[in-house]
Amino acid sequence: MAKSKKPHRPKARLPKGMRDVGAEEVRAVAGMLAAIQSVYELYGFEPLETPAFEYTDALGKFLPDQDRPNEGVFSFQDEDEQWLSLRYDLTAPLARYVAENYDGLPKPYRRYQMGPVWRNEKPGPGRYRQFTQFDADTVGTASVAADAELCMMAADCMERLGIPRGDYIMRVNNRKVLDGVLERIGMTPGDPVFDHQRLTVLRAIDKLDRLGARGVELLLGDGRKDESGDFTKGAGLSAGQITPVLDFVATASNDPARLTAELRTLVGDSTLGTQGVDELETMAGLFAAAGYGADRILLDPSVVRGLGYYTGPVFEAELTFETTDEDGDQVRFGSVGGGGRYDGLVQRFKGIEVPATGFSIGISRLFAALNVLGKMSHAEVPAPVVVLVMEPERLPDYQKMAFDLRAAGVRAEMYLGTSGMRAQMKYADRRGAPAVIIQGEDERARGEVTIKDLIEGSRLSAEIEDNAEWRSGRPAQVSVARGDLVSAVRDILARST
Amino acid sequence: MAKSKKPHRPKARLPKGMRDVGAEEVRAVAGMLAAIQSVYELYGFEPLETPAFEYTDALGKFLPDQDRPNEGVFSFQDEDEQWLSLRYDLTAPLARYVAENYDGLPKPYRRYQMGPVWRNEKPGPGRYRQFTQFDADTVGTASVAADAELCMMAADCMERLGIPRGDYIMRVNNRKVLDGVLERIGMTPGDPVFDHQRLTVLRAIDKLDRLGARGVELLLGDGRKDESGDFTKGAGLSAGQITPVLDFVATASNDPARLTAELRTLVGDSTLGTQGVDELETMAGLFAAAGYGADRILLDPSVVRGLGYYTGPVFEAELTFETTDEDGDQVRFGSVGGGGRYDGLVQRFKGIEVPATGFSIGISRLFAALNVLGKMSHAEVPAPVVVLVMEPERLPDYQKMAFDLRAAGVRAEMYLGTSGMRAQMKYADRRGAPAVIIQGEDERARGEVTIKDLIEGSRLSAEIEDNAEWRSGRPAQVSVARGDLVSAVRDILARST
Repeated sequence: MAKSKKPHRPKARLPKGMRDVGAEEVRAVAGMLAAIQSVYELYGFEPLETPAFEYTDALGKFLPDQDRPNEGVFSFQDEDEQWLSLRYDLTAPLARYVAENYDGLPKPYRRYQMGPVWRNEKPGPGRYRQFTQFDADTVGTASVAADAELCMMAADCMERLGIPRGDYIMRVNNRKVLDGVLERIGMTPGDPVFDHQRLTVLRAIDKLDRLGARGVELLLGDGRKDESGDFTKGAGLSAGQITPVLDFVATASNDPARLTAELRTLVGDSTLGTQGVDELETMAGLFAAAGYGADRILLDPSVVRGLGYYTGPVFEAELTFETTDEDGDQVRFGSVGGGGRYDGLVQRFKGIEVPATGFSIGISRLFAALNVLGKMSHAEVPAPVVVLVMEPERLPDYQKMAFDLRAAGVRAEMYLGTSGMRAQMKYADRRGAPAVIIQGEDERARGEVTIKDLIEGSRLSAEIEDNAEWRSGRPAQVSVARGDLVSAVRDILARST
Repeated sequence: MAKSKKPHRPKARLPKGMRDVGAEEVRAVAGMLAAIQSVYELYGFEPLETPAFEYTDALGKFLPDQDRPNEGVFSFQDEDEQWLSLRYDLTAPLARYVAENYDGLPKPYRRYQMGPVWRNEKPGPGRYRQFTQFDADTVGTASVAADAELCMMAADCMERLGIPRGDYIMRVNNRKVLDGVLERIGMTPGDPVFDHQRLTVLRAIDKLDRLGARGVELLLGDGRKDESGDFTKGAGLSAGQITPVLDFVATASNDPARLTAELRTLVGDSTLGTQGVDELETMAGLFAAAGYGADRILLDPSVVRGLGYYTGPVFEAELTFETTDEDGDQVRFGSVGGGGRYDGLVQRFKGIEVPATGFSIGISRLFAALNVLGKMSHAEVPAPVVVLVMEPERLPDYQKMAFDLRAAGVRAEMYLGTSGMRAQMKYADRRGAPAVIIQGEDERARGEVTIKDLIEGSRLSAEIEDNAEWRSGRPAQVSVARGDLVSAVRDILARST
């Protein structure tokens, strides 16, 4: 006889940086998405779905914190040897969609899209390679009223999700104001080296939260060595150039009129900078008219966003309540979404400028935040009633009981294993079943079924200390005629909710 | 001055075999998914989400109609040079999940999952490389009561989606019966060549619908040349072997007792075959007990499914109503879902057998079918009311009107472009707006707003032939005080629904 070869067994394992999502989170996230969707719909946005991957050249190279093309994405080739990449956000596919379907779209075009995106980046605690975003974008209008609308809508989303006013803030800035400041310190927008140097400046400012003013100062200058000794090259600004940038970032006021006045001074006679301040003023007027005060939307020059493609207003949704991190320190939850105006993205394809602005909510971070806040609703779907299988040869009868319950709208299942009573009760417990249905030989002879109320039962077992009393009383258990099964179960469920 | 280089412009195009999904279909499919989900939930199934890709070795090589490993999937390597593949179904990731989390799961474990899957196959009309599946699986029980439950649940789904009884049928068979027939004609289950030859037989039978009995006969024998001249190699059975297989496939009856009696004769003394017939009988008993007759679930030996991994019961949901194809011929809609028992899939990882069974609904095909049936509900989300911008410098006022409407729960948007009245009305029409809000200089002076009822307007314009009468009457238009805007819009919306 031939020696039997040991079969190769693959190891069951998740890919690096990926995770499975269990029932509780799937349901909770579905509830979040529905809440956000209802707000987006109310503002007139329409849903769109694009495929998971695009031709790599269509996605472009706009990954945050990635200077090199195609770094940070998952790519593969099709049979025609064209490169494809999994989408890393929902904005690049929208730009491709708009360019491809421009003539058939209403203008302006408001669309929302939710779905997973993928990043080929180093995973870490809470950082996964697949996560869900929920975006809203308005394409085809240069009016900052579109940007203002997104900011107000984002604030509405936070409140619809149960985040109290004061626990979140929408921060708004305008890239042109920063460009004006850069112009004043001698940098030249339009110059070939400007774009790259500006991106380095943006990313330095974007790290203010994490590194503080001193860290940003180093990154604006020659560079910064972090705790591990790694050196990040800076933007190469001189001390005289750095000061106005830091002044700009530090400008703060709850009074929009005062803030814009200060910014106007900082940009001086820069046309671009002045235009940026004008736009901020217009947006502030729109917020005020609709009653969105500084407790919901705040002008804040320290918000710049790390992406290269923004051209005007930028905004960020931040959760401001404090929570305790792994080390027991009090920390702010931080950003759960952001966006801004990107007038050049569609132009990549079409040659003509198609102004656009968008906002993206990071669902996974927001989910974590809502959990901390205790705002996550969990119990929309009741656990099922379990029909036990006492006499295996009578499966059809037990199955009919589950069927009758379901026909009456009661979530119910028949036990499908082959184990005994004890294991079946354990299973019901594991499922969180509110009740189990039992029909053994005795009940069958009497034409009855027994219903155990597990919720009342566990309440009583916590109260009744005397085991004998418990056994003799058999509380939270009732026997009824088979024909009364459904109504008796309904009574028990009504009691327990 | 340097000659300006013409920038490279990528072409905006969808990847081959992919498609975008617009608002109407996104909403309709969401409604379908919710209906199916409610049925799955009622039966006690719990949601699970796994990532879009898995390690290639974890996915295995179970693609339908693909003998070669990794053919038909999209694959790429990670930084550790491990191969990853986009999932091609939701069953293989479930097997990985169960193997990885076995001890923590309730047993049996009922789970559902919906989501996109990807196939690197030749696209064609209605055949895309990304499509949505909605699966339910029961893991950890060998009882065919689990298979029977899936069949009844699938029938419930069809009816919940509005497909009338008689327009769909669940067909049920058992692989072991076919194996019994194969054993009787001299093939040997367990023999190394058996698996491959059986797969060829399965795929031949699976083509009965398309090729008819004569085509299947050729594929069971030496092979078949199709219209284009391409030759498909057959299973190599002799004429004497082919007849019992074709007899088996042709066995049909609405009476389960009669059908299983005939099958019992065909399998003779084959232990495997007899076991298969026994299982079919058990399932038939469960269907009968719950009142699912042959008008909903039918035993049908011609259903075999093309996948190699099924080990027992197999089933298919078929739409039986006729529709007209591109050539004007009457055709049946055909299969919209299927499944079966796969006791070996988890074993690949764990070494021990973990019995499992599942059912998968093809959402895209079902969506097309419901459209044909006219069962697709479309209008859950009303089109937005559009506030026109008559005096651009008064954006905040118009925006406040949209805000007030939304605060009252009315879907509303302010026009965000820069075009004139005519283009704005065209935009509102394009959006399907039920009404537009107008406040020009005159209305403003009077403290009023004008509301145009576009639905009543278009009804009237179809009725009133005299253009002068139309203009003088100004029907379907009302001017109210600004403070009465919301209640007046509500009145109009209530009238139009």
